[in-house]
Amino acid sequence: MVSCYNIHMAEKAEKTKKLSTEPYKGVRDFYPADMAIQNFIFDTWKKTAESFGYEEYGASVLEPAELFRNKTSEEIVNQQTYTFTDRGDREVTLRPEITPSLARMVAARRRELIFPLRWYSIPNLYRYEQPQRGRVREFWQFNIDLFGVDSIEADIEVISLAYQAMKDFGAKDMDFEILLNSRALLEKIFEGKLKDTADLSKAIRILDRREKMKPSEFDAAMEEITDSPVDLSISPNEEIDKILASLKNLGITNVRFDPTLARGFDYYTGIVFEIYDTNPENRRALFGGGRYDDLISLFGGDKIPAVGFGMGDVGIRNFLETRGLLPKAKAPADYYVCVMSREESAFAEKIANDLRKNPSSGGSRVAVDFTYKKIGDQIKSADKRGIQNVIVIGQEEAKSGKIKVKDLKTGEERAL
Amino acid sequence: MVSCYNIHMAEKAEKTKKLSTEPYKGVRDFYPADMAIQNFIFDTWKKTAESFGYEEYGASVLEPAELFRNKTSEEIVNQQTYTFTDRGDREVTLRPEITPSLARMVAARRRELIFPLRWYSIPNLYRYEQPQRGRVREFWQFNIDLFGVDSIEADIEVISLAYQAMKDFGAKDMDFEILLNSRALLEKIFEGKLKDTADLSKAIRILDRREKMKPSEFDAAMEEITDSPVDLSISPNEEIDKILASLKNLGITNVRFDPTLARGFDYYTGIVFEIYDTNPENRRALFGGGRYDDLISLFGGDKIPAVGFGMGDVGIRNFLETRGLLPKAKAPADYYVCVMSREESAFAEKIANDLRKNPSSGGSRVAVDFTYKKIGDQIKSADKRGIQNVIVIGQEEAKSGKIKVKDLKTGEERAL
Repeated sequence: MVSCYNIHMAEKAEKTKKLSTEPYKGVRDFYPADMAIQNFIFDTWKKTAESFGYEEYGASVLEPAELFRNKTSEEIVNQQTYTFTDRGDREVTLRPEITPSLARMVAARRRELIFPLRWYSIPNLYRYEQPQRGRVREFWQFNIDLFGVDSIEADIEVISLAYQAMKDFGAKDMDFEILLNSRALLEKIFEGKLKDTADLSKAIRILDRREKMKPSEFDAAMEEITDSPVDLSISPNEEIDKILASLKNLGITNVRFDPTLARGFDYYTGIVFEIYDTNPENRRALFGGGRYDDLISLFGGDKIPAVGFGMGDVGIRNFLETRGLLPKAKAPADYYVCVMSREESAFAEKIANDLRKNPSSGGSRVAVDFTYKKIGDQIKSADKRGIQNVIVIGQEEAKSGKIKVKDLKTGEERAL
Repeated sequence: MVSCYNIHMAEKAEKTKKLSTEPYKGVRDFYPADMAIQNFIFDTWKKTAESFGYEEYGASVLEPAELFRNKTSEEIVNQQTYTFTDRGDREVTLRPEITPSLARMVAARRRELIFPLRWYSIPNLYRYEQPQRGRVREFWQFNIDLFGVDSIEADIEVISLAYQAMKDFGAKDMDFEILLNSRALLEKIFEGKLKDTADLSKAIRILDRREKMKPSEFDAAMEEITDSPVDLSISPNEEIDKILASLKNLGITNVRFDPTLARGFDYYTGIVFEIYDTNPENRRALFGGGRYDDLISLFGGDKIPAVGFGMGDVGIRNFLETRGLLPKAKAPADYYVCVMSREESAFAEKIANDLRKNPSSGGSRVAVDFTYKKIGDQIKSADKRGIQNVIVIGQEEAKSGKIKVKDLKTGEERAL
């Protein structure tokens, strides 16, 4: 390698001009204004989760490919994962979802962990999809999971948490709707109607894609695997009735039973639910979840009941934009220190440092302008950045140590 | 694929027992206690950066492989990157550092951005290394960069920020040392001594690895590329003297010139610095940075002066552990609601919800126990989790609506 260095330098000079400033296809750059929105979303998620006593965990983006093969939906594993062989001949997958990693972690310490377990995470996930509105190759997902409670109180809590997350973002009840169904009812719909009973998962998957298909396509797909017509106008069971009543008791009324609701993952075993955007121009599932009691036992040992959901950043960001719920931009600093000339730079740095450590302001955010441009231009720069307070350091200030702060909003000046 | 489903289900049953709970080699799972430390580190980084008026940005883990080929050190690109071909035949690299992505983003919007630019990020980075103490394959790195200031005020600010980050973690001045050098002095050391002037980068790289080599190895490597012995006892130049004086003026005195300091990356053009752990049992570089004025012009257009550093999570975590600076564990909730029987669950959920929304407490964190075990066991569970306040909901409480809170630390009870 080292012997290639000269060749490398020559190549560098040649290639230089061709370097593209484009990111990889289907992923996003986050400039500060976008990152601030991303942080607003993450902070809101954290706040909601922690208000319900959930603790944050994390796992790696890199996982053994094997982990996803038997759990994640077939479509994702076969068509959408980033899987490759590392330099040590291991097959690695960039996680397309976090639930298998979570199940792995819970299974590994099932004897030490104190159940019920309330955990959340905000992982970055990877799917090789054709980029389009709402679909990107790298996204973040708020994941909430409650382990160790097999009764419907767990389902109720997780659905309330999903509801509360929407409210914490500022959404009104009329802005979204919670749809509810259960694996048991999905099975009932197809009971005695499938040509081959092993086709149940396939049938559920067709139902899951129903809204993306033409009615004729849907009917044809169903006819292929069923003997007699499927009736989608089934009534809720007792479990769903109880959950609806409990949610109502908690003040959550924008929720209803939907017998056609099916979630894409094989591992759901009980209740499934979806948060649906009611915007007439943009009706679509925002996110969803459900109960998956069998997943942990794939790692050996007994079943551990589990309920959870995953909420992607792209969908909620789009929702917040459409509803005008994004926060206003925040200035990058509380004070902007303008410096007349290089002679005063040391004094300016000291003033900035003192303000940063000032306990009465709880520690201010202070930026210094080292361009030595005209003071008017430096103040304009502060204004463009949205910074409210400006301090000008010239010869006089450096000598006397007397500093004034100018408020660019009110135009007032005060001594510091 | 769908036709493979039955085979797949049969395989699933067979494979089930073999699924390993181990993460991918060389990466870390973050259980809540570990994640809390990780969050403490990230929050401290954010606080320090924002106190200097830096704004957070982000980019994707996935980058076109080409981006790293001409900038990151050869060792990293050739031996340590995760590079693979995606399903669309694009060569992708999991970023081993963020600086090239940052340079790409700045270059892309150089006309719209307001300089000087103060940016920070906390990206996850990937390097295929042999896992060992301090070396993992996935890590996070605090990155600080100041663009658009070509005078030493930028170097001074970035070094002060590095110092302040250490102080914000609770480190004392004697716990660490700042070493300072410059590309100009490194070049001077080898001036007229190299057999081939094109070997300068190679020589700097040997110097960079000096502490990891035996003296005889180092001498042999040097002799191979030089005509006459290299003198490492050179004096600082005016630039370094000025920086040392300015830092002293800001109260930063644990800093010194080190003519043997070389940073591994090709792109440094001016000052380089390193934060060094002074622990006698663990003397080593914690992190470092420097000036790199040429990087942005690789994307076309004029140079943009830049100074920055990158501080990894593994090194600082290890430092904090060694120095006893890690924060105490925080309870996952403020209140733990114990529930006698299923009859009171709806009431308990309501109480929990009210507490979460209580504005006087600023919104409490509340977890409910739905196990319906004996109340004594539920209280023990709260205690094990370190939750201080316990509320017991029985028939009486549900009927009267009168709720008491028991403080597990003091043993006192009070009405809510």
